[in-house]
Amino acid sequence: MDDRIRRHAEVLVDYCTEIEPGDAVLVRAPTAAEDLVVALYERIGERGAHPVTEWLNPRAGRAYARAMDPDDFDTKAHQLATMRETDAVIMIKASENAAEGSDVDPAKSQPSSRAKQPVLQERLETRWVITQHPAPRDAQRAEMSTAAWTDYVYDAIDRDWAAQRERQQRVVERLDDAHTVRVVSGDGTDLRLSIAGMTTINDAGKRNMPGGEVATSPVPDTVEGEIRFDVPLYRHGREIRDVRLVFEDGIVVDHAATHGADALRSLLETDDGARRVGELGVGMNRGIDCVTDNILFDEKMGDTVHLALGNAMEECVPDDRPFNESAVHADILVDVSHDSRLEVDGEVIQRDGTFWFEAGFDEAS
Amino acid sequence: MDDRIRRHAEVLVDYCTEIEPGDAVLVRAPTAAEDLVVALYERIGERGAHPVTEWLNPRAGRAYARAMDPDDFDTKAHQLATMRETDAVIMIKASENAAEGSDVDPAKSQPSSRAKQPVLQERLETRWVITQHPAPRDAQRAEMSTAAWTDYVYDAIDRDWAAQRERQQRVVERLDDAHTVRVVSGDGTDLRLSIAGMTTINDAGKRNMPGGEVATSPVPDTVEGEIRFDVPLYRHGREIRDVRLVFEDGIVVDHAATHGADALRSLLETDDGARRVGELGVGMNRGIDCVTDNILFDEKMGDTVHLALGNAMEECVPDDRPFNESAVHADILVDVSHDSRLEVDGEVIQRDGTFWFEAGFDEAS
Repeated sequence: MDDRIRRHAEVLVDYCTEIEPGDAVLVRAPTAAEDLVVALYERIGERGAHPVTEWLNPRAGRAYARAMDPDDFDTKAHQLATMRETDAVIMIKASENAAEGSDVDPAKSQPSSRAKQPVLQERLETRWVITQHPAPRDAQRAEMSTAAWTDYVYDAIDRDWAAQRERQQRVVERLDDAHTVRVVSGDGTDLRLSIAGMTTINDAGKRNMPGGEVATSPVPDTVEGEIRFDVPLYRHGREIRDVRLVFEDGIVVDHAATHGADALRSLLETDDGARRVGELGVGMNRGIDCVTDNILFDEKMGDTVHLALGNAMEECVPDDRPFNESAVHADILVDVSHDSRLEVDGEVIQRDGTFWFEAGFDEAS
Repeated sequence: MDDRIRRHAEVLVDYCTEIEPGDAVLVRAPTAAEDLVVALYERIGERGAHPVTEWLNPRAGRAYARAMDPDDFDTKAHQLATMRETDAVIMIKASENAAEGSDVDPAKSQPSSRAKQPVLQERLETRWVITQHPAPRDAQRAEMSTAAWTDYVYDAIDRDWAAQRERQQRVVERLDDAHTVRVVSGDGTDLRLSIAGMTTINDAGKRNMPGGEVATSPVPDTVEGEIRFDVPLYRHGREIRDVRLVFEDGIVVDHAATHGADALRSLLETDDGARRVGELGVGMNRGIDCVTDNILFDEKMGDTVHLALGNAMEECVPDDRPFNESAVHADILVDVSHDSRLEVDGEVIQRDGTFWFEAGFDEAS
């Protein structure tokens, strides 16, 4: 076994989820992640904790979704019961075929997502992490060889997370006291939103491995303007390309995509919350140096900003602030490395990918 | 997909577990059974029920068991919670490597099995079935080509279960009113036991697919004599060959094996119940015509008898009769096709593999 798999398991168990003796650990993994599951079981055993693995199987999921009457989707009582007794969840991504859901009627994704909502809520109460195991099919999507993709994944994971956390903390503190944020990029993006009273979080690899993002939730009704996303979104096996959204009073009032427009519409129609923004994120992991059509990596890439349609992040929204609730949480990305600026309360904090505390900020156009 | 996989799924969902709309279904499956899992999800979707799959991964299980301190094994709270909310369990056997557990200290199997006991008890409250998906590694163990093994598996499953049930019912009725059973075979086996007051069950494919066995539980203290098993037992990846057991007052007082004697000892030492007999079974599926070192098939083979060390069968033991409780249930097989007889209350009901109601019974020696 590649020793990096074992180190990855150690990071997940020791750093991300801080597994303790006796913890009930739920691993959710697809077939292609088997090696990492084996390494995890070894590490979880060394910790004296108790793992169970839920097999994520997109082929089976497709067969099920096609066979189901949309009215029959319902929360799985046993899956919910599992989550209620789970202390930590380690979710592993690794595709056999990212297009497995491409011949499922998109109309089925709404009742399916809605049925999963209570399980998702319960999972957010655990110590959870999402990670990636390098598999050939994801390499293909990244247009890389399997070896190059494997290096890319482990290079993004094998980092000095303490230093990363410190750098991100400067942005966290800037956003935490702020009221308004404005994102301007090229001709297509000029978005304003309020984050007043929200809490900004520092994701330095706890919830996502790799981590490397600073995130908060906007006040739902305050999102105004338009945004054009540079990176495709994958949704239930469908690619949605060149997404353009127009917001008024926090709600998507116009939308377009050059590819996968029906999947975008289905996403937006999941529920009321799916037409609103649940998250504003700033990617700060410069170890990730290119987009690979994999949101776990792309959203952490340095010099990017992303919004998520749908469910807000619980830890960002204090009890007295409005929480955008939805069965979906779909991240979409904007490249802000050039012809762009990020403003906080009218002050530019990043210009063309350079933060105010970095060399070259004053010289940027 | 081989159409027999789809028919297998239909039998499991429609006949064995009688899945209804809204049922919470737990599938427990290893990697090699993926095709059957896909077919099951399709059928479960057609029924409007809700499946979750627990991934059985012997490589991960080995890594975990090796890493764990024996004192740290405990019932998995989330696994138990799952089972409590589960209506039906479909367990699929399909090996990647049947020897995966061969380098785990056998002493670890006891605390591991004990920890699983509450989950096992809870599973017995559901509508459950154990079945086999044909995989190359099991074919190797059966010393068959993959194609021949696949035919063997589906031939044993694609049967007229109504006719099978009727034939078995004659033996059920004979045993149900009986007091003593005696099994004599060759020089090595002469075993007597009481089944007074116990209930005999007719397994025609409900709990095991393939089915084809008549089974009951002996009164634990009444097992006397010696028995020599003709077919190897596999236990945590170890082969135990030529098992010989001597019983006094229902307890194993002497034991031997030509191979795997330490694994046999570990099995017997799991708990008090592991040294007693929990089941007496009669194999009646003549569609299974040879031993393949796979207990799911071997124990159903016509003209065989098997005992299980360990946990009794709940449905065989009325509340007022003694129940043998154990964390293990290990079936071991005796060929009674020749030089053998099965007696019930002193009367021969099977001689050299021929039942009293079958042609040739009177002529048998």
